[in-house]
Amino acid sequence: MKGYNGRILRVNLTAGQFSTEEPSEDYYKLYLGGRGFIVHTLLTELPQGIDPLGPENKLIFSLGSITGHPLVGSGKNSIGSKSPLTGGFGESEVGGFWGAELKKSGYDAIIVEGISNKPVYLWIDNGSVEIRDGKELWGLEVADAEKAMQEELGDKKIRTAIIGPAGEKLVRYACILNDISHVAGRTGMGAVMGSKKLKAIAVRGKKSPEMADKEKVKELSRWMAQNFKEKTGMWRYGTGSGIVDYERTGNMPVKNFRGGRFPGAEKITAQLLAEKYVTKMGNCFMCPIRCKKIIKMEKPWSVDPIYGGPEYETLAALGSNCGIDNLEALIKAHELCGRYGLDSISTGVSISFAMECFEKGILTSEDTDGLELTFGNVEAMIEMVERIALRKGFGDLLAEGTKRASERIGKGSEEFAIHVKGVEIPMHEPRYKQGMGLSYSVHATGPDHNTGIHDDRVNKDLASLESIDIAESIPSTELSTRKARMVYHAGLWRHLANYVGLCLFVPWSHQQVRDAMEAITGWPMSYWKLMKAVERGITLARIFNIREGFAAKDDKLPRRFATSPAKGPLKGVVVEPEKLEEAQKVYYQMLGWDESGIPTNGRLVELGIEWAAEYLEEAR
Amino acid sequence: MKGYNGRILRVNLTAGQFSTEEPSEDYYKLYLGGRGFIVHTLLTELPQGIDPLGPENKLIFSLGSITGHPLVGSGKNSIGSKSPLTGGFGESEVGGFWGAELKKSGYDAIIVEGISNKPVYLWIDNGSVEIRDGKELWGLEVADAEKAMQEELGDKKIRTAIIGPAGEKLVRYACILNDISHVAGRTGMGAVMGSKKLKAIAVRGKKSPEMADKEKVKELSRWMAQNFKEKTGMWRYGTGSGIVDYERTGNMPVKNFRGGRFPGAEKITAQLLAEKYVTKMGNCFMCPIRCKKIIKMEKPWSVDPIYGGPEYETLAALGSNCGIDNLEALIKAHELCGRYGLDSISTGVSISFAMECFEKGILTSEDTDGLELTFGNVEAMIEMVERIALRKGFGDLLAEGTKRASERIGKGSEEFAIHVKGVEIPMHEPRYKQGMGLSYSVHATGPDHNTGIHDDRVNKDLASLESIDIAESIPSTELSTRKARMVYHAGLWRHLANYVGLCLFVPWSHQQVRDAMEAITGWPMSYWKLMKAVERGITLARIFNIREGFAAKDDKLPRRFATSPAKGPLKGVVVEPEKLEEAQKVYYQMLGWDESGIPTNGRLVELGIEWAAEYLEEAR
Repeated sequence: MKGYNGRILRVNLTAGQFSTEEPSEDYYKLYLGGRGFIVHTLLTELPQGIDPLGPENKLIFSLGSITGHPLVGSGKNSIGSKSPLTGGFGESEVGGFWGAELKKSGYDAIIVEGISNKPVYLWIDNGSVEIRDGKELWGLEVADAEKAMQEELGDKKIRTAIIGPAGEKLVRYACILNDISHVAGRTGMGAVMGSKKLKAIAVRGKKSPEMADKEKVKELSRWMAQNFKEKTGMWRYGTGSGIVDYERTGNMPVKNFRGGRFPGAEKITAQLLAEKYVTKMGNCFMCPIRCKKIIKMEKPWSVDPIYGGPEYETLAALGSNCGIDNLEALIKAHELCGRYGLDSISTGVSISFAMECFEKGILTSEDTDGLELTFGNVEAMIEMVERIALRKGFGDLLAEGTKRASERIGKGSEEFAIHVKGVEIPMHEPRYKQGMGLSYSVHATGPDHNTGIHDDRVNKDLASLESIDIAESIPSTELSTRKARMVYHAGLWRHLANYVGLCLFVPWSHQQVRDAMEAITGWPMSYWKLMKAVERGITLARIFNIREGFAAKDDKLPRRFATSPAKGPLKGVVVEPEKLEEAQKVYYQMLGWDESGIPTNGRLVELGIEWAAEYLEEAR
Repeated sequence: MKGYNGRILRVNLTAGQFSTEEPSEDYYKLYLGGRGFIVHTLLTELPQGIDPLGPENKLIFSLGSITGHPLVGSGKNSIGSKSPLTGGFGESEVGGFWGAELKKSGYDAIIVEGISNKPVYLWIDNGSVEIRDGKELWGLEVADAEKAMQEELGDKKIRTAIIGPAGEKLVRYACILNDISHVAGRTGMGAVMGSKKLKAIAVRGKKSPEMADKEKVKELSRWMAQNFKEKTGMWRYGTGSGIVDYERTGNMPVKNFRGGRFPGAEKITAQLLAEKYVTKMGNCFMCPIRCKKIIKMEKPWSVDPIYGGPEYETLAALGSNCGIDNLEALIKAHELCGRYGLDSISTGVSISFAMECFEKGILTSEDTDGLELTFGNVEAMIEMVERIALRKGFGDLLAEGTKRASERIGKGSEEFAIHVKGVEIPMHEPRYKQGMGLSYSVHATGPDHNTGIHDDRVNKDLASLESIDIAESIPSTELSTRKARMVYHAGLWRHLANYVGLCLFVPWSHQQVRDAMEAITGWPMSYWKLMKAVERGITLARIFNIREGFAAKDDKLPRRFATSPAKGPLKGVVVEPEKLEEAQKVYYQMLGWDESGIPTNGRLVELGIEWAAEYLEEAR
């Protein structure tokens, strides 16, 4: 009769102990799951000012309210912690099967505390929990680690969340991988996991989650299975099929976001991938769309198909953004990011940062251990992925992320560090998608293309978005207060997907999500109530960051975007700082914050989180 | 295919001309109907500072988005104008059949401008419009006026909106009556109509309104017809069946809101009315609930059954509030209010004000033309209704409303004038229902028990209200920031009923209203979008008032409520001014206004009403 197990597993690795908690139903109604659960827990449990890689940080795996239920697209879960990249609220979402398996094991979330004195992994077998010795796993690449656990546990069907060597070595943008090929990439969650000496969480579960109205859930899922092909093209190529168009419009970053044309774009498309290397399409839990590429490639590099194929973000971050149009090299680099457990966006942007420094003479081959780190140097790019992951030589510096690396290098290199709050910017040019740019600047976790809005896509999707009060098509390159309105309304919707654990690639309508929430949880539901839960989460995340010292001044984009590329589609296009500031101010106010981005007491009361005022006090 | 005709009739009585306008579909999507349409029109069309009873004021009749569609409870329409009681935004809603008939005639709203140089009435015959001579109607009581029009037009099936002699004489709380017995009572709309020399609007219509999904509408209506008896008791006695309980709790005002017990309550209940005088129950358009009383009484006073029977507000305002427990006298006074076209709430509170002044010696029988205006004096109360309506003697002063009357009388009588912003307070004690008290204080039209929340009823209705984010039961007498939260969420819902033209007595769920809106209009709809439309209207109404000179200081309750009755259920209970102010501040912020109640730029942008900023400028 309910869409949550109500059970939280709390594991303390310092003590080697664990316990189970059952928050009240009211708690879940207020905060939902995903980011909502995470931010509440982090804010209320983490002391101010702790070291993200120290024992006081906590790493939280949280399912959305719908995760693991038999509804198309419900394979998502969130992972959150104080971010080692930003020092603020960190969070990343991920698909695959692990989240659904955790649901079936009877848990909705895992809170990992403390630091183990030796490598361990967690084994959750249908509700029973074991902290196991991870010595044999430590140092293994991701797929090898899964295989070793399968053998040790004698179960081929385990689902896994694993870090690679990069996480072990505390690369600040190390990722956590679900089932080897699904990546929680952003904000350095893999480093936090590594700091705790937790190699993996293996899960098996056999309990079917309960639902208030099973028939309704089935009906919704059937409808989607029958209709998705008309509503999304994701089943054809997954992400990356729009690359030629992205290059033409300027959306796809070129050479560390400097802009200009990149004719090689047509050599790195998802269409070409499909033609040459994709053997079949893979999927996540309960999803007929199958947007994940399975790759077979032997030459010029051999790759293990188990790591899947590169998504658009990877093709752009390590491709166009590094001046590289060698598809095979990108397939290999993607596989390496998987093996080692690196976020391919931050990896690509860190490398492109170094390439620009190299070009400008700020770095020389002396600094890079002899590597000619020029834009377009395929071998150097691939080599750098490995050096970053293993913190070898110059890689050790880039493993700190562009913000820290540029601060250490100095000499004006800060200009080439393309990050917000320390997180490298994803592959959507804020000069082209200026709503996305605004999103990047204000989001608690730094630049996030999931919760951020894709201006041009919103314009194409108005017929559906009208139901959530988005009324007008606005040019992608416009930055204005009305664009802030679009970011607000559509952004809440994109956040919601995270809180309920649904994939944004599945074309659910707003009303269907409401219906699904009510059918699964049995809770009286309105889209209003869902949006209020999201505003609650966003506001708590803001408060978390304020307490950690963030303020409106940190809601900024790299200066590069205030200048225009000399040529190419973005010639003459800039993100005007005054417009950005004006749009931010109204965005804050839309969320019920004051003009400095500090939540008002009235909004806290409205959202039923008056208790959070004390954390704002703490910040003073 | 749409839930609006899209046609507005604009009538200029000064010029004797009319025209038809067709606002865009986008316009209706933003502002909906009812209050939403009215406030937009008044704000954008009325110059600042005009005389409510002068030629520049406009009187607007506006249907809700659903009014007149075949859905249970869709008989409501709104009437709005600059209020002669407050000088700010005025509006009153009303049921009956007239609104649905206007819909069938092809119009969604009528904007009446200017002032005729002689009495007229408007005749809308299935879309064709005529401004007709009203000389013969002028001076007639309401039912007589309808009869005269029926005869003159040769049509017994006309539906009418009429003012009585009180409206003609500009009694500041004169009402407008739909179909004789349905009353748009509050804020003096009848006086505005009278000032324009417009006696009535008679309507016939034959066009069935179009709908996007007729089957869905029928299905919803069938469901309600089958289920209403389980969800509301209104079909039994209509309003007034809770009087004994209201007296016990302190909700029912006693002797000009001074409080104390009123044992006579049990003599004026709807149950007794039903037992002794109700012959059958009447209804509004498309409503099986039939909550309207039809009365037969010959002695000690004879009444015309056509005026229906007294509702709770009337039984309390002229009854307990005047110290009167004579049921027959209340039936008669109700009928007189109908005949003359008086708002029974303001009438009752004006009389109780005078009674208290009389008791205190501030007024004597010299002032009252010999009337012994004591609490409980039945004959004097009935006499005063007539004198007010016809502005006879002392009645002329009370016809100005308690605010103006007390200002003229002076001598401390202001303490006994129980109004907010000039509108007399309805029959729900703000000390007992402190959420209602907060509502009274902040609403643009003054104290409004329709859009205000009934604290105790909200507590009983939590299972349904949970879907719009109301989580907790809060004692009725508590005033706090969390109570402000209840007022915010539940208040928006109660406003919404007005905007869409649905009766709050029909137990539609939030989701059903969303469904109905989508089925009727064909517009993609979410409850979020509906609430945003309401916030839009509330914010525009606030701006209207700010431009007319209102500020947070005017959001206040009479001082009486800061003191406690010496005995009775409210002994020891007060509305604490500091708590009220604190609750107001957070309420403002919930609406995206600053702490002084001025809408922030961000909220204007969020709601897509940036254009309204210029009116705030004008206020400075």
